[in-house]
Amino acid sequence: MKAISILGSTGSIGCNTLKVVEHLAGEFRVVALGAGKNMEKLAEQIRRFQPELVAVETEECAEDLLRRISNFKSRIPKIEIGATGLIRVATHEQATTVVSATVGAVGFVPTLRALEAGKRVALANKETLVMAGELMTEAARKNNAEILPVDSEHNALHQCLRGESSGEVRRLILTASGGPFRTKSKDDIENATIEQALNHPTWNMGDKITIDCATLMNKGLEVIEARWLFDFPADEIAVVVHPQSVVHSMIEMIDGSIIAQMGVTDMRHAIQYALTFPLRKSSCLPPLDFAKLSHLTFEEPDLEKFPCLALAYRALKIGGTMPATLNAANEIAVQAFLDSKIRLSDIPKIIESVMNEHESQPATSLEVILETDARARKQAIIKLDKNAAAD
Amino acid sequence: MKAISILGSTGSIGCNTLKVVEHLAGEFRVVALGAGKNMEKLAEQIRRFQPELVAVETEECAEDLLRRISNFKSRIPKIEIGATGLIRVATHEQATTVVSATVGAVGFVPTLRALEAGKRVALANKETLVMAGELMTEAARKNNAEILPVDSEHNALHQCLRGESSGEVRRLILTASGGPFRTKSKDDIENATIEQALNHPTWNMGDKITIDCATLMNKGLEVIEARWLFDFPADEIAVVVHPQSVVHSMIEMIDGSIIAQMGVTDMRHAIQYALTFPLRKSSCLPPLDFAKLSHLTFEEPDLEKFPCLALAYRALKIGGTMPATLNAANEIAVQAFLDSKIRLSDIPKIIESVMNEHESQPATSLEVILETDARARKQAIIKLDKNAAAD
Repeated sequence: MKAISILGSTGSIGCNTLKVVEHLAGEFRVVALGAGKNMEKLAEQIRRFQPELVAVETEECAEDLLRRISNFKSRIPKIEIGATGLIRVATHEQATTVVSATVGAVGFVPTLRALEAGKRVALANKETLVMAGELMTEAARKNNAEILPVDSEHNALHQCLRGESSGEVRRLILTASGGPFRTKSKDDIENATIEQALNHPTWNMGDKITIDCATLMNKGLEVIEARWLFDFPADEIAVVVHPQSVVHSMIEMIDGSIIAQMGVTDMRHAIQYALTFPLRKSSCLPPLDFAKLSHLTFEEPDLEKFPCLALAYRALKIGGTMPATLNAANEIAVQAFLDSKIRLSDIPKIIESVMNEHESQPATSLEVILETDARARKQAIIKLDKNAAAD
Repeated sequence: MKAISILGSTGSIGCNTLKVVEHLAGEFRVVALGAGKNMEKLAEQIRRFQPELVAVETEECAEDLLRRISNFKSRIPKIEIGATGLIRVATHEQATTVVSATVGAVGFVPTLRALEAGKRVALANKETLVMAGELMTEAARKNNAEILPVDSEHNALHQCLRGESSGEVRRLILTASGGPFRTKSKDDIENATIEQALNHPTWNMGDKITIDCATLMNKGLEVIEARWLFDFPADEIAVVVHPQSVVHSMIEMIDGSIIAQMGVTDMRHAIQYALTFPLRKSSCLPPLDFAKLSHLTFEEPDLEKFPCLALAYRALKIGGTMPATLNAANEIAVQAFLDSKIRLSDIPKIIESVMNEHESQPATSLEVILETDARARKQAIIKLDKNAAAD
């Protein structure tokens, strides 16, 4: 039985990972869980999966959790706190696979430590590779660790690339749903409400990533992620808009052949694949029903309507600390939009303005990257204040 | 430089194979060509490719050819005649790959001999596997020969299966264009003209196979072919109608994932793949342009409107000599339709009636299969005469 740790166990990917573990009864045991503040859900997970270790965000969380689980008949796990706690979860000695599913930059260091400890990382936290792709992939290479993508697009690419020689791949083709504003005008995007932006056509996800889908920044981050996961340059990673999200991504071979992976839009598929690779196991999900499929369509992305995607390509081509700058500025801008402080169309403006003031340097150490991240966030907040003052 | 032989060099697949050889300049040389009666084209091919050996159908063809090529400055090939000639082409000692692209049963014995000689066979002649799948695959296994499918659907399946373990494949999914009568009524099919039946929506091919596409018998034969190429039982080979022919076929994995191969509808892709496998080489074809793709649709095949497909599944499930019987009766019935002797809807009736009278036996020898083929043709002709008398 393989042992796994989960960073972000009470989030969407974390909960789905536990569903997959339940489905694959007897194949995996859960040794450590890292959660945020949802102690009710974490207590349930402890009852069901009996981990040896859990990490929570604060002392208060730990006290809350203890009250909830102290009367459990089964083993009470060790409880760790904060960033150190997450690192302990990520490096638990028994764990051979670590699911990295926290949102944003918090999973960054724990994920790096898991790779340094030679573990397979099932990676759902895309910021990790966006901020520190070189550092992460270098750590994986040196420590013989694997990164298995849980993002449905990259998971699809991983599947398509099986049995192919990467020198025979002409380009990777990431599919994008196009988000809720695909058919809308620039004006509509300008005046979009939070509710409209959160109304994703095909996937049900958290708020931050759903806004990223609305601006196509999510696809931009995925382009950067793909560059590091599969070692392809920016100009060999294409994006095609495919509103039905049935084709999860594709590769184009030098002989013109396209290999595509398709499936239902449920994260459990990619999670299970990342856990069981190189094997495949029977799924708890229904197969794709071709007779019930609507028509599938494809179109070029509109970089003018969605400047975030172009900004991501630009950051990737500049390289170094520029992608981390893009990512940090985006996180701040998206939160400001969710807090009703800016319009959706202000997001790319703020990012571009932060990028314009950033001078990229090699992103070869944790310190440089974390410093870049902090500085870009500060810069973005300054831009927000200026934006507010101008209104 | 690899040496190849082509059975059926003046046909559509043969000519496309030579285009691929020209495109891959310096990778392949043509050592032997087997043609039918088109001596003008064969003479051109000799001038261009300078094979050592050619086979033609009759003495008269040989004389005609000699007149055409006797003044060539380059080497004049040895000319062989008839069935023996085709076998010499198929077993030419220098050839490592034999492209088997004759139409109908004539390629049957030469293809078997090529496999017995341990050659890679790039197989476009589907009747070979339909009639004698067990014999062919057994010969390949015993002599360490490979069969690489040139049919676009099977070629797609071969590509999808790369890197996958066949025990983890739930089913093969052959796509079918649905032919010119997909959206037509049973009455329309009943009264279809030859011109209507020859009007294939996506592929440009010979008459026999185009009629097979109109009745969906082509897909039925492909199901049988897939059974032998990939060793899957009938109930793990599905057919999905996909009118745009962009997805050439798919596999469904046990974890629910679909791996699909897509591309332009040009046989040169599959031919090149079969020649260069396990390598892929740059193609002379334009890549698939997603921005220009119309929408892709999928639907279940209508077995009531297209009984030929159901008959093929039935023949495959019965096994033994039944598929050879189906194939022979179909060849006779299709020719009768092309000769305006029967209606399109009579084709399945004649086949079913011949199948009903056939008692299947193990198809383990050449003699049994050739005898089955001859008997089924005779039976089909008798049915045709009865059909004519009844009119």
